[in-house]
Formats: sequence, C-alpha cells, structure tokens
Amino acid sequence: MIRVNFKSHNKEVICSKGENLLEIARNNKIFIDAPCNGNVSCGKCKVKLLKGKVDTEKTLHIKDEEWEQGYILACNTKVIEDIEIEVPSKLSSSMHGMKIEGSDKKKDQEIFDRAKKIIEDNNFDFKTNIEKTYIELDKPTIDDNICDIDRIERYVRNNLGYDEIDYTVELLRKVPEVIRESDFNVTITYVKKKNKITILNIEPGNNENQLYGVAIDIGTTSVVVCLVDLYSKEIVDKASSGNAQIKYGADVIHRIIYSTKKNGLKHLRDAVIDETINPLLESIYIKNNIDKDNVVSLVIAGNTTMSSLFLGVHTDYLRQEPFIPPFLKSPKLIGKDIGLNVNDSAYIFLAPSVASYVGGDITAGVLSAGIWTSEENILFIDLGTNGEIVFGNKDYMMSCACSAGPAFEGGGISCGMRASNGAIEKVSIDKETLYPKLSIIGDDKPIGICGSGIIDLICQMLLSGVVDRRGKINKDLNNDRIRFNEHEIGEYVLAFKEEYGIENDITVTEVDIDNFIRAKGAIYSGAATLIESLGMDFSAIDKVYIAGGIGNNLNIENSILIGLLPDIEREKFAYIGNSSLVGSYLALVSKDAKMKLQDIGNEMTYVELSVYPTYMDEFISACFLPHTNIEQFPTVKELLGDKVKI
Amino acid sequence: MIRVNFKSHNKEVICSKGENLLEIARNNKIFIDAPCNGNVSCGKCKVKLLKGKVDTEKTLHIKDEEWEQGYILACNTKVIEDIEIEVPSKLSSSMHGMKIEGSDKKKDQEIFDRAKKIIEDNNFDFKTNIEKTYIELDKPTIDDNICDIDRIERYVRNNLGYDEIDYTVELLRKVPEVIRESDFNVTITYVKKKNKITILNIEPGNNENQLYGVAIDIGTTSVVVCLVDLYSKEIVDKASSGNAQIKYGADVIHRIIYSTKKNGLKHLRDAVIDETINPLLESIYIKNNIDKDNVVSLVIAGNTTMSSLFLGVHTDYLRQEPFIPPFLKSPKLIGKDIGLNVNDSAYIFLAPSVASYVGGDITAGVLSAGIWTSEENILFIDLGTNGEIVFGNKDYMMSCACSAGPAFEGGGISCGMRASNGAIEKVSIDKETLYPKLSIIGDDKPIGICGSGIIDLICQMLLSGVVDRRGKINKDLNNDRIRFNEHEIGEYVLAFKEEYGIENDITVTEVDIDNFIRAKGAIYSGAATLIESLGMDFSAIDKVYIAGGIGNNLNIENSILIGLLPDIEREKFAYIGNSSLVGSYLALVSKDAKMKLQDIGNEMTYVELSVYPTYMDEFISACFLPHTNIEQFPTVKELLGDKVKI
Repeated sequence: MIRVNFKSHNKEVICSKGENLLEIARNNKIFIDAPCNGNVSCGKCKVKLLKGKVDTEKTLHIKDEEWEQGYILACNTKVIEDIEIEVPSKLSSSMHGMKIEGSDKKKDQEIFDRAKKIIEDNNFDFKTNIEKTYIELDKPTIDDNICDIDRIERYVRNNLGYDEIDYTVELLRKVPEVIRESDFNVTITYVKKKNKITILNIEPGNNENQLYGVAIDIGTTSVVVCLVDLYSKEIVDKASSGNAQIKYGADVIHRIIYSTKKNGLKHLRDAVIDETINPLLESIYIKNNIDKDNVVSLVIAGNTTMSSLFLGVHTDYLRQEPFIPPFLKSPKLIGKDIGLNVNDSAYIFLAPSVASYVGGDITAGVLSAGIWTSEENILFIDLGTNGEIVFGNKDYMMSCACSAGPAFEGGGISCGMRASNGAIEKVSIDKETLYPKLSIIGDDKPIGICGSGIIDLICQMLLSGVVDRRGKINKDLNNDRIRFNEHEIGEYVLAFKEEYGIENDITVTEVDIDNFIRAKGAIYSGAATLIESLGMDFSAIDKVYIAGGIGNNLNIENSILIGLLPDIEREKFAYIGNSSLVGSYLALVSKDAKMKLQDIGNEMTYVELSVYPTYMDEFISACFLPHTNIEQFPTVKELLGDKVKI
Repeated sequence: MIRVNFKSHNKEVICSKGENLLEIARNNKIFIDAPCNGNVSCGKCKVKLLKGKVDTEKTLHIKDEEWEQGYILACNTKVIEDIEIEVPSKLSSSMHGMKIEGSDKKKDQEIFDRAKKIIEDNNFDFKTNIEKTYIELDKPTIDDNICDIDRIERYVRNNLGYDEIDYTVELLRKVPEVIRESDFNVTITYVKKKNKITILNIEPGNNENQLYGVAIDIGTTSVVVCLVDLYSKEIVDKASSGNAQIKYGADVIHRIIYSTKKNGLKHLRDAVIDETINPLLESIYIKNNIDKDNVVSLVIAGNTTMSSLFLGVHTDYLRQEPFIPPFLKSPKLIGKDIGLNVNDSAYIFLAPSVASYVGGDITAGVLSAGIWTSEENILFIDLGTNGEIVFGNKDYMMSCACSAGPAFEGGGISCGMRASNGAIEKVSIDKETLYPKLSIIGDDKPIGICGSGIIDLICQMLLSGVVDRRGKINKDLNNDRIRFNEHEIGEYVLAFKEEYGIENDITVTEVDIDNFIRAKGAIYSGAATLIESLGMDFSAIDKVYIAGGIGNNLNIENSILIGLLPDIEREKFAYIGNSSLVGSYLALVSKDAKMKLQDIGNEMTYVELSVYPTYMDEFISACFLPHTNIEQFPTVKELLGDKVKI
C-alpha cells in the first residue's frame, strides 16, 4: 500500500506498488492531460515529483533542465514508494480542463437570429410538439373514486380533446403526492402525437411558464450546453467546458482504443455524462434557478464516435475497415435511459450521423448552414477535432472526413489550448524585430494558443521568414525568440515568462508546426478530392462556410496563405462558428427543422477518402506552406517573392 | 458505538446507543418477523438476550418463564451496550421467512390443464406475440457499409416482411459485439405489432429454442414465480417464498403505513424485488441453466397495494377515505424500469386492479376461474391476506374486499405459518381423549399451523366441546392439552415439544381463535352483503370457488361448520388453489387471454363494504361459531345438538 499525495490538489490517495501514475490520477478524478492516452508519445502528462522515488525513464519530451527539476511523464511512471506529486496548473485546468465558461448575450442572439432566418426562409413552424397546461381536476369522493391516473386521463379526454395518455413509471411515481399537494390543481407537461399525449411532468399548482429544452454540442474536445426557453425560444444560458473524455485521449481514435479496455466504455460514458454534461447543466440550473424536471426536450449533436460513447455503445468497428458504425439514427431515448441531469421522461434526440466519421455534428451544422436549401454550391468545412467537409446544394450533398487531428482546437500543439480565456487568438509578427503582437481572449495573461492563433502565427512566421515552406525554422536568424534544443529542434517564443509574469515561456516548436501542417494539409486535400470526385474544381464553389471551435477571429486571408483554404475570391468565405450547436438549437425549437435534420442524415452521400485513389498524393502535396504546387496559390506566390523556394 | 452480535446468524453489527433492536436487524438484513411492524401489539418479534443489558419492558406477550430466560420484544428494545442476541430459528426462517420452495410437477400440470381448458373453451389463440428467428446477415464490405442496426432492419424488411424495427438503447449496446461474435449470424427475439417489430434480444448464432416468460403472483404473504417455456407453454419450474416485505408488517395496512416513513417506499420495493422475486428467479435460472436475457415477457398479479409497491408508487391514499388507488391498469413497463432479474427489454404486464382493495390478483383469479364466461352464478372467494369476493356470471361481475387480515395464511396466529413444509394442514381431535391427529406438509416435524389446519382445528375444538360458540375454551375440561396462563387466557396444545422433539410446544390460544373468528366473519358477512346488494341470497349461488394459499387440503365441510362458508349444497364448492397464478400464466401464454384480463379489469364493479349500511351488523353477527343466527347453518345446528347454546 503506497500513498500518493497530489500536492497541487491537496489530495492523498492510496494505491498498490507498481501502479501506473496516470491511472492512479484517473482513478481518483485528478485530471492530467494525456492526448495520446498514455502511449509515451505526446509528452503532455508531465508532472513534477516533489518527494520520493519512482520507477520512470527520461524521454525526448523532457528537457534536461526539467528532468533535474523532477519532471516525469505520468504515463511512463510506476509508483514504488510514498511520493508527492505536483500537477502543473496549466495541465490540470486551463489547457483542456473542465473550466466552465458561461454565456455571451451577443453570441446567443446571433444563434437565435441565424436559426430564425432558416426557419422563416423555409416556412418552418417555429414550434415544438411539447406543451404545458394547468388543469383543475375534480376532487375524488366515495362516489367518484376512479384512480389518480384515470382522473387525469378523464380530464385530458374531456377538456383537452385527446383520447389517451401515456406516461412512464417515473411520472406515475410523482402523481399521488403532487396532485394532493395542490388540491388537485396541477400543471402537466406533455408531448402531443396525433390523438394521444405522453405526459412528461406533473407539478403542483400553476407552473405553466417554466418549459425548457437543451441543445448540446458534444465535441471531441469541447462540450457546449445551451438552455432554451421553449416558449420564447430564447437562449436562457449557455455553458461550455472541455470534454472530460480528453484524459482518455485527444482524438476519437485514442478514445475508441480506450473504449475496448476493461470498463473503458463505461469510463468514457461517465466522463462525458457525469463529468461534463451533467455539471454544465447543474451550473446553469443553479445560476438560473431552474428545476431540472422542467427540462423536457434535448437535441444532441456529436460526431459518430461521440454519439456512440454518449449511449455507451461499442465503437471499435468504427476504426476497423470497412468502418461500420453501430447506428446512425437516434434510437428512442428518454432522460433516465442515459442518466442525464434532466427530467427522467425528457425526450432526447441525437442528430443523425452519415457514416463512421461524418456524424451528427455535421448534419446539424449542415442544417444550420442551409446547404440543403441553397441554389449555390457551398463548401462547408468543420474545423473541429478531425475535419469534416460537405460540398453541395439543394440537389445533392457529398461529405467526407479528414484525419486532421485535434490541432485546430489546440490539440497536438505543445502550448495549444481551446479558444477560451487566456488563449492567444490573434498574432502578428514584426518583420524586423520578430516581436509578436498578441490578442488574448479575455484580455488576460496568455496561457496558450488556440486554433485561430496558430493559423496567424504560422502565416506570420512564413511571411517574416522565421520558417520556410516546409515549416522548418531558419537557423540563420539571430534573435532571442528563436532557439534550438539539444536535439536541434527549433522553437519560437511567443511569450517569455518574464514578459507576462507567467509560469513558463509559451513557445511553438517545429514539431508543433509539423503537426499543424499535416492537419491543414488533410483539410485542403480532402476538400480538393471531394470536389474532384464530382468532376469539378475549386472554381465551382460559390460559398465557403468554415465552422468549428477554432476561435472567434479566424483570419481567412492567413488561412489561405498557409494553404488551409483554397486561394479563391475572399468574399466567398464566411466563418459561421459552432454550426453544430446552431443546428441542434434549430431542431430543438422547431419540429419541422428536426424532421429536416433527420432527412439530411438520410440524403447526404459519404465519400470514404481513405480508399479514394488520389487522396494520399493530394495530402502529401498539401503538406507544405501553402502547397507543393505554389501555382494553386497565386496570391501567396506573389506575397512570398524570394521566400517561395523550398 | 455499540456492537450487537446476532449469535444465531454469526453476524456482529455496529450501531449507535439508543437504536431500536428491530430496526438494527432490518438494516442488517436479519429477518425478524414483525407483523404489526413494531407497534408492540403482536408479540411476534420475540428474541432472546444472551449477554448484556438492554432498555426494554416486559409486555403481555412475554410469559414470566420466558422473561426469566431473557426473551424480549425486539420492537420494544433499545440497545445501550454491547449485546448478544439469538433470533429463534422459527422466526428467522420457517415461519414467514425466505425459504425458497420449488416446483411440484403434478401441480404444474394442473395449472397447465386448467389454463388449456379456458383457452380451448373460449377459442383463444394459444400464442403470444413474441417470436424468435435466426437470421443470416450480409457481411459488411466497404461498398455495403450501412450501420449495424440498419443492416438488421434491412434483413427484417426484406426477409421477415416488417417495415420497421424498434429497440432500446440496452439492445443497441449489445448489437456490434454480438453480430461479430458469430460472423453476422444471429438470433433475434422480438414482439410483433402490426407492421413493426420491437427487438428484445439478440444472441450470437442460432438459439431459436430458448424463449421464456415468467408468471408471478405477488401475495402479501407469499410470492410465487413460475418460469414458462413460451414455445411449449409448459411450466419449466416454479419457486415460492415469503414476501420479504413481511418484516415491515403482515398486512397491507401496516405496509402502507411503513411506506410513508423515510425511505419506506424504497425499502418495500427493494424487499419485494431484490429480496424476494430476484432471488427466486435466480434460483430457477441456476437450477435450469437459463440465461436471464431469454426471459422476455412477464405477467404479474398482486393486490392493489402490492402492485403499487412493486412499482415504487405512493400508496398512502389507498387507506384514506375515499380510498383512491394511484393507478389500476398496467403502465408500459420493461425489465430495466423495475430492476427485475430478466432481460432489460422484457415486456412486463401487471394484471389490472379494480379498486383499492380488489387488485390484479383477483382479476387474474377471475380470468382463470372463468366467471366472465359462465352461465351460472359463481361466488369466488380469495382467502389470502385479506379476503376478496367476486359474485357474478358472464353478464355482470360484482366485487368487494373484506378486512380479513392474514389469518388464512397463518398471520396473526401465534403458531401460524404459510402452507409450506412443516405446516400442520389437517387436524382431527378425538372427542374422548382430546388427542389431535395431525397431517403435516412434507411429513416433517411440525413447525406451525397453516390456514387449512386452523379451520380443521377450530371446527374440531367446537365439535369436541373444547371451545364454545364464542371461541372460548371450556375451563371445566380436565385435560393436559388444555391450560390457562396467568392472565386466564386459555390455550390448546396441538403438539408437545417432547412428542415431536421440537423446540417449543405448538399451541393455539383464545386470542388466536378470536383473530380467526373475526377473519372468517369478515369473509362470510362480505359474501352475504355482496349478494344481498343484488337483491339475492345464498340460494342464488350455483358454484363457490375458493382460491388462495390457505393450503392444499381445505376441508369444505369444516369451513361451513365454523361459518366461514355458507351452509349450502356441498357439491357446489370447489377449492381452486392459487387462481391468481393460473390467471397470470394464462395471460402470459395467450395474448387473447391477456386482452380478456384487461377487459375484466374494466368491467368488474366494486362495492365498498365499509360504507354499505348493513355490513357492520352482518359482520358482528358472523363473529360466532358458526354465526349468531344458527338458523343460517342448519347442518351445524343439528351436529352441535346441546352445544348450540352460547
């Protein structure tokens, strides 16, 4: 029996000799970022040994100076005696951690306005099929002694005009007490379906004005929960945080692998439900004084893996050829089936998936982007963890997925982070001094860099000659912001710790740049292949919609300059943010939109890039700044001048 | 912190000073019988203090001799220091305990034959709507990459001819693994409903021949579980035990009161499900090597209180005027809703109740007794804990309930027990010697006396002059089997401990007799009032069916002699045993019978005796042996001769 004292968390835990330190942390709900899920390949799970000895090894990820200070990789460490550990604060909370972020009225209004426009343009009913009615039941007497539930049914039949009521055992359990608490005057919440209603909730007295729904976007990296007033359709509040599954791997592949381990599926499900969504809901309920039993409808969008893990369904065949998902359409689900912190009888709808790697986040995104109703050809790119691309118009929609990894959300980048407070979201570099000018979300001290910041940074490094078109740092520059480690790997310092009074320098390394180039190359080549498969090229595009949690200030120009986006007319581009959330919101507030979402799932075609003959060549060509074939990027060619040489 | 060592159970538990001994036992799953639920009124929770001191008081239930030996009432005892306790073995298991009893092939065949007769006489389909089919799915390829669940649906549409499939999330969770385990050849179990099927189970390979259902009779005192092969309709096995709720009170009123206490509802639900039904199911599964996932349909019959507690629904208004039940008809239920040890998606159907005290056990009983299809007038009497009476024929059915208490199942009788091994089920008394001749179930040593035995005993005591028509023991008889305690309460010794080598004498006291007379008086007066309410009398009866767990050898003659049953032609009477179980079985194996059961619930009329003006007078008149008005019992009048005087 060994004691591990996590000093940073004031938490001492008991474990056995020989246990893995990362596992010990996980088992005790201490968050240590581990994007590679403990394969000793990412180096993110670095912790500091304060006291005692462990069985570990120095790896490439640990600098000599860090090794001397006691830094070790948790995934690569076995405990052999009582120890004290410090988990660096950036790992445990800010980077990918569970900090809950609240609502932004302006953005909420934008979601509402965008949804309203879709609804109005398509003559959708701005209505759900859920209602709430205050009813005054006859009080029972010895002569009118029908049972409680029949008394409600009689009222519904005589006064509301439905023939039948349906209800769960959970609802039944509430009935006797609730109707007597308020002298047989109650408010019922119900879903209408032809001549029948299903009662979802019963409350004492008149509480007709409390009726809520929730739209949820389950991203691989981030989760957003959006509470909606089902009467006014207004967004009451929003909360987001990292997806607690991150501790089991940064991308879907690592999570799928983890899901096959003992209890892996359960851990992953618990992580997203109990450790992510339920706390987010709870925070909103407390802040807005909401009774969870009044939350009776949910629309949830996530990629195919997220949807499966959310339901606790086996996902291993998603990653094995021929890549078969367990399900695409939402099964019938209510709150208690999943253990969500909402009414037990609440209706839960999952946005449909199209294929193993084009999921409900994309169908929801497409719903809100309006491709299905557009005369023009729209290219839709979702820059999440992985990238998904849809191309089409009202007559057809083709989709594909690229293994872009989590780089656009800050994953796989040593100082990367989600687009939340403390993230560097814009960068410009002075060409003379190489001094970086930073914009930081929340105007706070910088903690790391988010996707939009990385795009700016790499573009600026390219234009200022800090990196060449292969992404290698120029060794001839004599500048204190440029340095090389003992393995000759270069890095650029975005923020010295002394400049901002922070714990460590914020730097971007050649490894980071390489990771990012592969991510942007995957997107570009995916889009090119998809359009090519239709016998077209980029000139056929009328509009490009960029979605995803990359940050609020995606610089289109810079994205083109690095070769993430095609070099076409700038006015065709629009950044549409979290389109998956907008789509979920749409399906939540309009039953017509929900039906359309189901249709989109049925109608979209999927192209499997991995078996598409030209894709690999396209990808390799795109793994340059901006591209091997500079002729595809005339704007960049002109700007780079001499620097165009590789 | 105090230690209580239950020596009889080899179990030491920790509790706080001042805690109630009965509560301590309950909290630690040590069974102590407490029919009055700890009100110091029944005296059943007698335990022996072996060591240490307690805070208790001597009550009427403890004889001087017992008090000296250390006997105390657990319900009346607070712990104040470490103690050692012995729970008498008859209390902890045999009497009302959880001894599981198995099947009896002869009785099983009787159930089958009786059900078959009803099915054939009424042209019912001897079929359920559940089927099982082995299917060979196409194996997925990169060109045929539809998701797993759509692959099943495609097969069902193309090969089985249904348009749509439905399933729970639990079923979905099994699909990916199961279909691959057997190379895409699987067996599906499903319920048909028009053009749609709901899949209940999926298994690898061909397992078409395993398909089971369960019929359950939840009595207040006893629970019987009956596993049925849904193909052959044969009873595979049966198991029964006491209802573990007994520790919270012997009758429904005490249980309802307990349900209103903190966690009371949960404790009662756990007792019947986790401590009674699930262990019975488990015992059957192990014995017969059954996979619980192949148990996909259940029909459950219980009185209104049992049905409510089974679902965890509040029952307090059942016992308060105007006696309103929460529900009568079965809500839609599947296995996981209740936590039953069956397939999570299994269909569960509760036999409908008619009113607060005429429940699903009666509608199921009526189904199997065939009153609804009879030209003749049938009087149906269920002698369970409480007595329910139905009178009618195919044109009308009237029902009522009498507060008979648990006497017919051995409750409220000092040496009473369920009709299980060790129960005295028949008694005759030699008129000269007053020596009792006993028939014991299982030909074992006697443990106590069951309902049929008590009827015989009281009848024989009356005929032999041991008791008079008020049920008082004759003080003038000089016989060692008759004795009186310090309070002048008489008792008759059925079995001396020395005779049988048992722990204590088995006796019946004047208090027991009084309890039983009130029980039989309630039944007789209930039947009389019900028939009178239709403007008829007992002469209108064509048949009398007696149901209930009173024992296998109900002596009709003796039952008439003591005034439990009306003094009419003997050939009109039939004892039909556990009709509730037969009805559940019927509804399980025939969907037509299930529909008929639902109809019976809708069509039966309920008469509330407690507000019926003449009932109380009828009851008081019936609290004699056989009745105040001996003219109603001409046979008895003749037999008693001189003893007829009160």
